[in-house]
Amino acid sequence: LAQRIDRSLITRSVTIELINTGSELLLGRVLNTHQQWICRQLADRGHVVQRQVTVPDTAIDISQAVREALSRAEGVITTGGLGPTSDDLTRLEIARLLGRPLREDAAVLDQIQSFFTRRNRSMPASTALQAMVPEGAIVLPNTCGTAPGLLLELDPNTFQSDNRPAWLVMLPGPPRELQPLFTTQFLPWLLARYPETQRPAACTLRSVGIGESQVEQLIASPLTPLVNTGLEIGYCARPGEVDVRLIARGPGADRVVARAEAIVRDLIGDHIYGQDDDELDTVVMRLLRNRRHTLAVAESCTGGLLAHRLTNIPGASTVFAGGFVTYGNQAKQDCLGVQPETLAAHGAVSEATAREMARGARDRLRTDYSLAITGIAGPDGGSPDKPVGTAFVAIAGPDQVLVLRLFNPLERLSFKQVVCQQALQLLRRTLLVNSPSAPSSLQFCQDLNR
Amino acid sequence: LAQRIDRSLITRSVTIELINTGSELLLGRVLNTHQQWICRQLADRGHVVQRQVTVPDTAIDISQAVREALSRAEGVITTGGLGPTSDDLTRLEIARLLGRPLREDAAVLDQIQSFFTRRNRSMPASTALQAMVPEGAIVLPNTCGTAPGLLLELDPNTFQSDNRPAWLVMLPGPPRELQPLFTTQFLPWLLARYPETQRPAACTLRSVGIGESQVEQLIASPLTPLVNTGLEIGYCARPGEVDVRLIARGPGADRVVARAEAIVRDLIGDHIYGQDDDELDTVVMRLLRNRRHTLAVAESCTGGLLAHRLTNIPGASTVFAGGFVTYGNQAKQDCLGVQPETLAAHGAVSEATAREMARGARDRLRTDYSLAITGIAGPDGGSPDKPVGTAFVAIAGPDQVLVLRLFNPLERLSFKQVVCQQALQLLRRTLLVNSPSAPSSLQFCQDLNR
Repeated sequence: LAQRIDRSLITRSVTIELINTGSELLLGRVLNTHQQWICRQLADRGHVVQRQVTVPDTAIDISQAVREALSRAEGVITTGGLGPTSDDLTRLEIARLLGRPLREDAAVLDQIQSFFTRRNRSMPASTALQAMVPEGAIVLPNTCGTAPGLLLELDPNTFQSDNRPAWLVMLPGPPRELQPLFTTQFLPWLLARYPETQRPAACTLRSVGIGESQVEQLIASPLTPLVNTGLEIGYCARPGEVDVRLIARGPGADRVVARAEAIVRDLIGDHIYGQDDDELDTVVMRLLRNRRHTLAVAESCTGGLLAHRLTNIPGASTVFAGGFVTYGNQAKQDCLGVQPETLAAHGAVSEATAREMARGARDRLRTDYSLAITGIAGPDGGSPDKPVGTAFVAIAGPDQVLVLRLFNPLERLSFKQVVCQQALQLLRRTLLVNSPSAPSSLQFCQDLNR
Repeated sequence: LAQRIDRSLITRSVTIELINTGSELLLGRVLNTHQQWICRQLADRGHVVQRQVTVPDTAIDISQAVREALSRAEGVITTGGLGPTSDDLTRLEIARLLGRPLREDAAVLDQIQSFFTRRNRSMPASTALQAMVPEGAIVLPNTCGTAPGLLLELDPNTFQSDNRPAWLVMLPGPPRELQPLFTTQFLPWLLARYPETQRPAACTLRSVGIGESQVEQLIASPLTPLVNTGLEIGYCARPGEVDVRLIARGPGADRVVARAEAIVRDLIGDHIYGQDDDELDTVVMRLLRNRRHTLAVAESCTGGLLAHRLTNIPGASTVFAGGFVTYGNQAKQDCLGVQPETLAAHGAVSEATAREMARGARDRLRTDYSLAITGIAGPDGGSPDKPVGTAFVAIAGPDQVLVLRLFNPLERLSFKQVVCQQALQLLRRTLLVNSPSAPSSLQFCQDLNR
């Protein structure tokens, strides 16, 4: 990906490597979500994974990868292969490689049995294999499944070329088991082992409606004095968004990052919707909830994606009344009261139709605000006037309706994603400004199209 | 992942390793979608990637990973690092490692210049770097961006321990550039190099509404005679779905796979909605389009996800009229005509409400069929009678309304995904049976809950 990230971000206090086991990953049947999730969890705490490897569920590949990783890294994390079936070999192979005999652990066996008892199911005999623990391992209990995590502290010179101690942790494959186990069991151990003083000060500012190169152009020079005192800057672009990551180390690091953050907010503050783990949809919903406002949506080209995103947020129902996916012209008339004359004169993808959709959604669901989106996702349906990628976003509030024309010539799904971001950003800006005027909306429209 | 895949699937005619470069991957800011996409493309043609590695954008990590991969594999694929900025080092480092001087290629420079000219933009000076080609490389033109792919055939003993020739291909990072380049430029070269006779016969049957262990229990014994003649079986479970992959090699492989497919279809045919790259939403939409039926949806707990999925399919508008996301009770009344008495007596999550939602959506959008979903996604809102995870799916057709009660105690997003799959499967079965009767619907309900 053509994303510029300062290489010094990769400097770290401890080298960690990640090994994902699973033939299904190499057959391309499953997306490796562990890589992003684990790397992100660690990076946010100042530990950047140095290398990630995927190997099939074969004994030789697993032990070769573990041996190589231990020769380079201080810590190794493996995922998968702790299940009860014949291709779950990680536990066995690592115990063999490290010369740690496997012994049945009575407490783990007990936990597995009670896992089945609570679910009124009998325990399959093969599951007992998951109670086998390598000698000296710390057991990380799995509250959401049967296979516990297994943490091993290794003697210096197990495979390392230099004389330093190392560790290895085996985590179960299912994300619903791995994630709580990682957060509640493994992370506290890791943070205790590597004191906080080694961790850098970091802040990620998340922006929307502005391009990566434009962000860099605006902030790079003003930040140069801080970069000269050790500030590191990283950029990361995703559909419709750019993250700016600010990092500093050593004494005074917090102050350096705080000053950098103030400078960036001063320069592109209108575009910054949150920081660290904030998501735009969550931020907008929080803004609405704090003001006790309600929201309705009317979607044509985004086809329900905006409603889907808003309803992924627990507690959405206090703000989000509902939505209309008015895909056809008839639906726009029947569900939202768009006038047939408007559709005939201006077309379904037009400022006038977007305006009537927003008004219709707000009136019918009796909400404070509404967002309406109509556009041409393609591949067909474009014209010289309105090529594929054209969209209109309208927001109806207590005072007026604001409409923007957008152009995002992207493939179908990216188009839907980017238009949703732009619609949410329009709503966020409107809520903050509270009285959108024509000039600022024009400015906003240009921003979005960069 | 606790997925059983026959290890013999990993047998292959050529060893290929994949190296993804990009610090943003190891910072966890970006999901590595290249791994799944490239592995799937190759596996479907009989070439299984043997190992995948992610390294940061640092010179030493890139060249170390390439050297190691070439020592094991016959072919190495790299992604990323071909851009014009200072952290794009892949081209430079690989050229250096292999002792191939970089030379400016006039044809590539010309293509890059015309890429900008067509877009009425001036070419940034730094972009010329992308016209640098290692000596002897085959240029794979990039029609969707500026950096071409670069393919190198290597002499025996470049880094390989045995005396065999090897190759290496560098692909650009952005998926919109990589994917067409891979499909139209690289894959034809690969398939020409490794003749079709080496490829196995393969078929993946995709099922829904039945658990992985149940599939295995039903098909494993009847397939044993074919397994004894060389058939390989792999299983892969995803939310609400199980794939069964059938593979055979050598003379008569096609017949073995065809016989296995017939046996599997005979045993679990009701659950098989498609094969290979078929998706359930696409299959259902095709079924509706072929019968010239139209569809509306009414969603509560799935919050627009079903409409979003249906509208991801190009040409959806000929079938899909529209949808209602009736999140609150008032919306259910106002938009769909659900009776306040029904909501008061049975609650929003009930058979009666689902039935009225489906009728309302079908009537208001004047479609042949409608699907309605109401349920409790959690984390709050459950009760002893209707715990979190409870959902009702209703389908209204020309003749009658069919309602199912479901239970999926999953986290919020998985719950939405699985309920959508179940709703689509209900519609698929109803369309195929054409006259759903009470007993078959009961049976169906049980199937879905396994």
